[in-house]
Amino acid sequence: MPIRNIAVGRPEEAAHPDALKAGLAEFISTLIFVFAGEGSGMAFNKLTDDGSTTPSGVVQAALAHAFGLFVAVSISANISGGHVNPAVTFGAFIGGNITLLRGILYWIAQLLGSTVACLLLRFATGGLTTSAFSLSSGVSVWNAFVLEIVMTFGLVYTVYATALDPKKGNIGIIAPIAIGFIVGANILAGGAFDGASMNPAVSFGPALVSWNWDNHWVYWAGPLIGGGIAGIVYEIFFMSHTHEQLPSTDY
Amino acid sequence: MPIRNIAVGRPEEAAHPDALKAGLAEFISTLIFVFAGEGSGMAFNKLTDDGSTTPSGVVQAALAHAFGLFVAVSISANISGGHVNPAVTFGAFIGGNITLLRGILYWIAQLLGSTVACLLLRFATGGLTTSAFSLSSGVSVWNAFVLEIVMTFGLVYTVYATALDPKKGNIGIIAPIAIGFIVGANILAGGAFDGASMNPAVSFGPALVSWNWDNHWVYWAGPLIGGGIAGIVYEIFFMSHTHEQLPSTDY
Amino acid sequence: MPIRNIAVGRPEEAAHPDALKAGLAEFISTLIFVFAGEGSGMAFNKLTDDGSTTPSGVVQAALAHAFGLFVAVSISANISGGHVNPAVTFGAFIGGNITLLRGILYWIAQLLGSTVACLLLRFATGGLTTSAFSLSSGVSVWNAFVLEIVMTFGLVYTVYATALDPKKGNIGIIAPIAIGFIVGANILAGGAFDGASMNPAVSFGPALVSWNWDNHWVYWAGPLIGGGIAGIVYEIFFMSHTHEQLPSTDY
Amino acid sequence: MPIRNIAVGRPEEAAHPDALKAGLAEFISTLIFVFAGEGSGMAFNKLTDDGSTTPSGVVQAALAHAFGLFVAVSISANISGGHVNPAVTFGAFIGGNITLLRGILYWIAQLLGSTVACLLLRFATGGLTTSAFSLSSGVSVWNAFVLEIVMTFGLVYTVYATALDPKKGNIGIIAPIAIGFIVGANILAGGAFDGASMNPAVSFGPALVSWNWDNHWVYWAGPLIGGGIAGIVYEIFFMSHTHEQLPSTDY
Repeated sequence: MPIRNIAVGRPEEAAHPDALKAGLAEFISTLIFVFAGEGSGMAFNKLTDDGSTTPSGVVQAALAHAFGLFVAVSISANISGGHVNPAVTFGAFIGGNITLLRGILYWIAQLLGSTVACLLLRFATGGLTTSAFSLSSGVSVWNAFVLEIVMTFGLVYTVYATALDPKKGNIGIIAPIAIGFIVGANILAGGAFDGASMNPAVSFGPALVSWNWDNHWVYWAGPLIGGGIAGIVYEIFFMSHTHEQLPSTDY
Repeated sequence: MPIRNIAVGRPEEAAHPDALKAGLAEFISTLIFVFAGEGSGMAFNKLTDDGSTTPSGVVQAALAHAFGLFVAVSISANISGGHVNPAVTFGAFIGGNITLLRGILYWIAQLLGSTVACLLLRFATGGLTTSAFSLSSGVSVWNAFVLEIVMTFGLVYTVYATALDPKKGNIGIIAPIAIGFIVGANILAGGAFDGASMNPAVSFGPALVSWNWDNHWVYWAGPLIGGGIAGIVYEIFFMSHTHEQLPSTDY
Repeated sequence: MPIRNIAVGRPEEAAHPDALKAGLAEFISTLIFVFAGEGSGMAFNKLTDDGSTTPSGVVQAALAHAFGLFVAVSISANISGGHVNPAVTFGAFIGGNITLLRGILYWIAQLLGSTVACLLLRFATGGLTTSAFSLSSGVSVWNAFVLEIVMTFGLVYTVYATALDPKKGNIGIIAPIAIGFIVGANILAGGAFDGASMNPAVSFGPALVSWNWDNHWVYWAGPLIGGGIAGIVYEIFFMSHTHEQLPSTDY
Repeated sequence: MPIRNIAVGRPEEAAHPDALKAGLAEFISTLIFVFAGEGSGMAFNKLTDDGSTTPSGVVQAALAHAFGLFVAVSISANISGGHVNPAVTFGAFIGGNITLLRGILYWIAQLLGSTVACLLLRFATGGLTTSAFSLSSGVSVWNAFVLEIVMTFGLVYTVYATALDPKKGNIGIIAPIAIGFIVGANILAGGAFDGASMNPAVSFGPALVSWNWDNHWVYWAGPLIGGGIAGIVYEIFFMSHTHEQLPSTDY
């Protein structure tokens, strides 16, 4: 049913001023988010001389990502819908809530924002490595694959329930906090096992700038599958189909 | 007085599409909440090689549960009322705010969600144990019993004051945050003594999957009694009885 | 100017059902708040075998108090105005926002709530000490006196600006969060020096139950003076005098 | 385009009662914010005997600043617009959202508030040093310069998107949280490298009271340039020019 909503968009759409503004907003939001999130990991490495992760380090990372994503969603919510994540954009596309062309524009903006954030971090820290996401010892690539699917399902389901669903009511007011905090909660759990990305852009920038692509596909396949499943599940079972045209996220 | 509000519900109610949707929402919310909460404990065990709890570990657990429950309540608030906890459902039933049949449906969904979360965690972590809740040395089963009663009283009282009471006003907007944060606050206090469950579903999944039932009854009896008392106290002294039909939690 | 607003209240007022309900709400809120706050300190002592305070311990205490107070204010906001603190009640009285009789009723309820919380904590922890607030080495009683004045000024000023001022607008929605978080912020600063009470009820319960009254007066004089100054300053310079009758805190 | 909005203000404006009230509100808000923020750093030094920064210490500093700034913005939002930061005032001026005279008044109030906070901290802590911001080893002054530019860009962009933009909608309700949390997120990343000030007033008070001006210019130039760029970027690309007169921040 929701599948029929999938729209390709007209070719001229991506060059529409509003679409370009939305792309710029996604670029800036992802830059700010990755700067804080990846930067917190580099700070941990500096403070501990590249020591192994501790509970304090996981708390530091979780808060940096939770606070940073909450802000990144808030500041782009009324311009681009506040995706800041290719998996969210993909989940919204699967549910028919964004066109293909605009989705591609968002992806490019998000990947670019993450890359620029990592370049700035490398300079501002005096040349430290932008550590790529990696698997802890004892965690197989299939463990991480399932982990990313489950965690990103939770994230994109949260986006649907609190931001995309027209019946969200007052919950919509605190949606950006919920979106930021589900990522924080999942990092407190999954961060010790595979870094808990839930976001291909968050993994892409550090991998590109440090040129470390080990198991990189897991951080794309997991989030996209988890986000896609969330979009399908929410659309089929819970979405209020009272909207006639493609809705934008409305806060 | 509130006792007269207790309703059994008609047999066909539990099979009503809305009831089934609500059950599915409870299942998904509890899964997401337990995945983050129990997962954070497993992460602590991994990072410290099963070391004993530290203040940092308690902060990690408290934030994971606070953030996770806030999100879990937010995403099911408009579908099922956002219980995510058999003690909340029981407290709502005692106060006449949910029927018996729907309450049973919620309990099944919550226990199932917690169990699936623990199975996923066991796989995604490469087979680590889903540690069951247990008493610290020097804490008797009756200490823990009282601890769970008091803490769950606080949680269910918060649900009543911020979500169920029609006179909640603007407080209703931030109700999911309050519900998540009372659990976080109580874990910062009680986590060091008995794990601070306040939620039979949160204790049930790990106990089932790790097959460890030591003192498990405390984590049912304490929360149900505390939640029941909160429902009675709030209904008798504070509830605005302006509602004619059974209200759903309204955000 | 605001001084003329000070009202004594009619003798029968304190026995009015609404006043008694408000007192009960203050009792329960203070009980829940102190249970989490004082309990987090006892948890730290248990986890570290009464070790000296660490930055992690300060974070644990700050979050327990911030989350706990946010909840305590939220759940009593629409019933009693959500004071949960004799210094807040005193500051509200100085500014003419509560009558003398109701203020006394609140004080009794708050002190009783804190005491019951400490008795429950002592039992639920298997008999641990409810540590009273104390001065760190190198901190004189006059240092602590000024510290409590400044920190409580910030707290009560926040109550005025976000909850009592009719022109608060949308800020009123997040007022309970602001009130909780100013206490959390101040504990992160002042906790290392004198425990950062800002609340005579928070200091009274632990002192009574552990029977330790060393420098106890500082934790009354500092908060009451700081809260009183905040009430006077806000009333004189910022309060919108558009209210005719005594307003209750309105969220 | 937005440049034409720059207004000097009439000479008598700065003496207008509303302007003076706004200045007083900025003074009090900055005092409360710096007291918690700088105080948390002094607390870390006391607890660790001036030990080197740890991840726990960064979490402590981030939460103190995040909670403190959220409160400082909330309590002055409806009186002065809640700047609490010369870089925010400068960014608002560049975008034409405050006059030059009022901006100067705000700067004086902010610098004075920070200085008084540091004097109070020195007394209340028994004479401890109010540590000035400084560069970590391996971080050059140009690294820090870029770091402050990027982080303050994020902060002032957040102020524009959530507080100054008339199309902010419901996001405006949670604007003070977003403004506080972007500072918290950036401290979790940048705190380990240059202290992560993003606010000349936050750096000025400690430098003055401890009379340590090493590299002080970085903590003015970086934030002002970053804030100015944010004001220009947001005004050109995203601002809704539906306002006729100079708007005040409206929550």
